[in-house]
Amino acid sequence: MENQLPPSLSLGEIVGRLGGELIGDAGITVRQVATLEKATPDTIAFLANERYVGQLKGTRAGAVIVGAQLREPLDMPRIIAANPYAYFARVSALFNPAPANTAGIHPAAVVHPQARLGTGVRVGAGAVIEEGVIVGAGCSIGAGTCLDVGVELGEGSMLYPNVTIYHDCVLGKRAIVHAGVVIGADGFGIAMDEGRWLKVPQIGRVRIGDDVEIGANTTIDRGAIDDTVIEDGVKLDNQIQVGHNVRIGAHTAIAACVGIAGSSRIGRFCRIGGASGIAGHLSIADNVEISAHTLITKSITEAGTYTGAYPFESNRDWRRNAASLRNLGELTSRVRALEQALKPGKKGKT
Amino acid sequence: MENQLPPSLSLGEIVGRLGGELIGDAGITVRQVATLEKATPDTIAFLANERYVGQLKGTRAGAVIVGAQLREPLDMPRIIAANPYAYFARVSALFNPAPANTAGIHPAAVVHPQARLGTGVRVGAGAVIEEGVIVGAGCSIGAGTCLDVGVELGEGSMLYPNVTIYHDCVLGKRAIVHAGVVIGADGFGIAMDEGRWLKVPQIGRVRIGDDVEIGANTTIDRGAIDDTVIEDGVKLDNQIQVGHNVRIGAHTAIAACVGIAGSSRIGRFCRIGGASGIAGHLSIADNVEISAHTLITKSITEAGTYTGAYPFESNRDWRRNAASLRNLGELTSRVRALEQALKPGKKGKT
Amino acid sequence: MENQLPPSLSLGEIVGRLGGELIGDAGITVRQVATLEKATPDTIAFLANERYVGQLKGTRAGAVIVGAQLREPLDMPRIIAANPYAYFARVSALFNPAPANTAGIHPAAVVHPQARLGTGVRVGAGAVIEEGVIVGAGCSIGAGTCLDVGVELGEGSMLYPNVTIYHDCVLGKRAIVHAGVVIGADGFGIAMDEGRWLKVPQIGRVRIGDDVEIGANTTIDRGAIDDTVIEDGVKLDNQIQVGHNVRIGAHTAIAACVGIAGSSRIGRFCRIGGASGIAGHLSIADNVEISAHTLITKSITEAGTYTGAYPFESNRDWRRNAASLRNLGELTSRVRALEQALKPGKKGKT
Repeated sequence: MENQLPPSLSLGEIVGRLGGELIGDAGITVRQVATLEKATPDTIAFLANERYVGQLKGTRAGAVIVGAQLREPLDMPRIIAANPYAYFARVSALFNPAPANTAGIHPAAVVHPQARLGTGVRVGAGAVIEEGVIVGAGCSIGAGTCLDVGVELGEGSMLYPNVTIYHDCVLGKRAIVHAGVVIGADGFGIAMDEGRWLKVPQIGRVRIGDDVEIGANTTIDRGAIDDTVIEDGVKLDNQIQVGHNVRIGAHTAIAACVGIAGSSRIGRFCRIGGASGIAGHLSIADNVEISAHTLITKSITEAGTYTGAYPFESNRDWRRNAASLRNLGELTSRVRALEQALKPGKKGKT
Repeated sequence: MENQLPPSLSLGEIVGRLGGELIGDAGITVRQVATLEKATPDTIAFLANERYVGQLKGTRAGAVIVGAQLREPLDMPRIIAANPYAYFARVSALFNPAPANTAGIHPAAVVHPQARLGTGVRVGAGAVIEEGVIVGAGCSIGAGTCLDVGVELGEGSMLYPNVTIYHDCVLGKRAIVHAGVVIGADGFGIAMDEGRWLKVPQIGRVRIGDDVEIGANTTIDRGAIDDTVIEDGVKLDNQIQVGHNVRIGAHTAIAACVGIAGSSRIGRFCRIGGASGIAGHLSIADNVEISAHTLITKSITEAGTYTGAYPFESNRDWRRNAASLRNLGELTSRVRALEQALKPGKKGKT
Repeated sequence: MENQLPPSLSLGEIVGRLGGELIGDAGITVRQVATLEKATPDTIAFLANERYVGQLKGTRAGAVIVGAQLREPLDMPRIIAANPYAYFARVSALFNPAPANTAGIHPAAVVHPQARLGTGVRVGAGAVIEEGVIVGAGCSIGAGTCLDVGVELGEGSMLYPNVTIYHDCVLGKRAIVHAGVVIGADGFGIAMDEGRWLKVPQIGRVRIGDDVEIGANTTIDRGAIDDTVIEDGVKLDNQIQVGHNVRIGAHTAIAACVGIAGSSRIGRFCRIGGASGIAGHLSIADNVEISAHTLITKSITEAGTYTGAYPFESNRDWRRNAASLRNLGELTSRVRALEQALKPGKKGKT
C-alpha cells in the first residue's frame, strides 16, 4: 500500500487510452489528478457539475476534463468526455492504481489448517481464519479481521482490518469491505412470550454478489430462515444497517447511515440518500431514488424520486410552524368550514 | 459453530414437547423450519400475521404453525398455538440448538494471569483479557475481543469477535454481544471554558443485567459520575447509541440505529422503532411504543404509541407541501383572520 | 488504568487550586465528585442548570458548586463559580486523574521495524503498527488497534482498542480515539458509467488537529483528492459519519449519530445535535447550532440555531396531522381562494 510517485502521461496518451476529444496541446504532461481549486500545472482536474463552473476561473490545472457543453467557451487544454466524472475516475485510476498485494500469511495471523486459501492471498497480523473458510485467489485479509467457520470469499476481494464475518456467509469476487464491517450477525428476531423476549434462531446466511463495496462499520444481518442477499455491483457507504432477509438489487447505491428493516426488497439501480430508512416487509421498485433523511413506510411501485425530510429553518420559525403542525388536521377542518360558510346562497357566518 | 444436520421430529413429538393443538397426522416428520415461500415437505413453517395469509396458498410445507383464527379454514397439517411466532421460535430452537462451546483458551489469546476464568470458558485467538477481569463459567469470548481491567461477565455469556469492553463494566448472565460492540467508552462530557472544551472525566461504569442481547456495532457509554444501566432482558439491535447515565428498563426492545441521549430513563417493556431518538434528561413510561424515525423531545408519562416521522411522498409533492410548511404558522393566522371576518355581524373583508 | 482511591481534599484546598468563592467551612474534606442525588457527605456535587434546582433539596453532599445566582438562597457549604460545570470538570480531574501510561510494547503486538515510536509509548496486545508509522512520545495504542502504513500520531495521544487508521492519515497531539473508530476509509466516490458503478480512487488523507476526541465507532473518510480535515479542539461523539473532503472547524462539538456528507465545511464553535445531517457541498458559518434530527440542505451563512425535526405526538394525532400535511400545498391554495372571495367588494363565494 505504499505510495509510489505516479508516472507522467501526456494528454495525447490519456486520450489514446481512454478516448474522448482532446482540444489543446497533446504533448502537455500531467502526473496526477487534482481539484480545480488546488491544481498545479502538472495535474489534470475535472468539472462534472455545471453548478461549479465558476471554479474553472483561476484554476492552475494543466488540463481539465469537461462535458460537451463546455467545449467552446474554455480556452485551456481540455478533454471533452460524455461523462466527465467517469472519465476522471479512469484517469485517476491510471495515476493511482490499487496497491499491489504482497502475498503471504503474516506469522501473527491464525489460519485454521482446514481453511483453503487460493494463490497470492495476503493475510495480515492478527487476522483469524476459522475452519472450512475458503478464500479466493488474490484476496487480501486485513489485520485483526475474523472469518468464522465456513465463510467463502471470491477471488480478488479486499477486506480491511477489524472486519468480522460470521459463519457460512458468502461474498463474491472483487469485494471491498472496509474496516469495522460486521456481516452475518444475528438479525433482530425476538418473540414476546409471557413477558419475556424469546430469541428466534437466525439460521439464514448473508450472500453477497460480485463487485460489491461495503463502507466502514456497516452491518448486514444474516437471515432468520432464508438468506439476506446483496446482489452484484451494490455499493454501500459507511454505517449502513441491513436487517435480516433484506434483498438489495444489483447496482443499487446507498449513502451512509441508512437503515433497512427486515425482509424489505430494494430494486436494481436505486439510489438511497443518507440516513434515510426503509421499514420492514416493503418492496421498492427499480430505479427509485430516495432523498436523505426520508422514511419509507410503504412499498414503492414506480421509479421516481421520493422525499420526506422536514424542511429546516431558524429555530424561531420552526417553533411557530411546528406548533401549528400539531393542529394541522384541525386547521384543515376549519378551512373546510369556511368554504362551506362561503358557498353560494350562504351568508358569511361560522 | 459447525452446522450438523438437525434431527427429524414428528409433529406428535413437537406437540408433546411444546404443547399446542395438532390437527393432522401426528406421524408426519419434519427436520427444519422454513418460510412458507421456500418450504419443502420435510419442513414446518408458520404464519404469525394474518396480513400474509395469502402466502399459505401454494406452500409446500409439511405443516404450519398458526393462530386459532386459522384453525378451520386450512386443510393442511397444522399446529394451533396461542402465539404462533413464539411457538415457531421454540420449534426452531429444537432444530437449531446454540452451538456447543468448545472450551479452551486459544494459544494466540492474551489472558492476564490475574484474570479469573470460570469453567468451560472459550477464548478465541487474539482476544485480550486484562488484569482483574472475571469471566463466568461457560462464557465464549470471540477472536479479537478486548476486556479491559476489571470487567465482569456473568455465566453463559457469548461475546462475538472484535468487541471492546472498557474497564470495570459489568455484564450479567447469558449476555449475547455481537461483533463490533463498544461498552463503556467515555460519555460525551465536555464543558465549554473560555473558548476551549474541557473534558469531564467519565467515572461511572456500564452495568448490564441478565439475558441482554446487544447488536453489532452498538455503543453504550459509561456514566459520567453514576453508572449507565441496562436492566434484565433488554434487547438492543445493531448500531444503537446509548449515552452516559441512561437507564433502560427491563424487557425493553430497541430497533437498529436508535440514539438515546445522556441521562434519559426508558421504562420497562417499551418498544422503540428504528432510527428514532430520545433527547437527554427525559423519562419515558413503561409500555411506551415509539415509531421509527421519531424524535422524542419531552418526557412521556403514559403508555401508548408516539410518532413523529415526516410522511414521505413524491419529490414533486414534497416540494410544494414542504414549502407550505415553512409558512404554516402564518397560514394558521390567516385562517383565524378569515374566521373573524366571517363572524355573524361582520361583512366579508380581511 | 486501575482505580486508586482518590486523595481527600479540603474545600479550602480546592478553592486554593482552582479559584472560586467558598462559602462555608474551608476545612470540610471531600474525596470524590457525585451527583446531587447520590452524594454522600464526603463528596462534592454541582448544579449547572437552574432547571434542576429542586435536586438541591435533600442532597447529602458535603458541598456543592453553583453559579452566582444561587449564592444566597443556599445554606450548605458551596463554591461559587462563574461556570459551575467547567469548575466541576476541573474538580473531577483532581480526584480522577487520567491513568498513568505503563509504557512498553506488549509481546503480542506487531510493530514494523521501520515504524518510529517515541519515548514512553504503550502498545497493547494484538495492536498492529505498519511500516513508516510515526507514534509521538507518550502515546497509548490499544489492543487490536491497527495503524496502516505511514500513519502519524502526535504526542500524548490515546487510542483505545480495535481502532483502525488507514494509510497516511495524520492525527495531532493529545488525540483521544475511542474503540471501533475508523479513520481514512475510502470515501463514497463512485461514478455511474454505462450501467456500472466505477470506483473513483480516494487519494486524499485525513488530517486531524490537536486536542481532538473521537467517539466510539465514528468513521471519518479520507479525501477523494484533497484531504478531509478536522481542526484543533473538535469533539466528536459516537457513531458519527464524516464524508470525504469535509472540513470541521476548530472547537466544534458534534453529538452522536450525525452524518456529514462529502465536501461540506462546518465552521468553528458550532454545536450539532444528535442524529442531524448535513448534505454535501454546503458551507456552515461559525457558531451555528443545529438541533437534533435536523437535516441541513443548504448553506447557513449566519450564526444562530436551526431546527427541522418533526414534532412528535400520539400516533392518533400524528395520523390525522400527517395526512393533512400531504395536502398542505393545496390547503394553502384554498385559503388564498377564501381570502380572494372575501376581499372588499366581493360577496362570499368560491
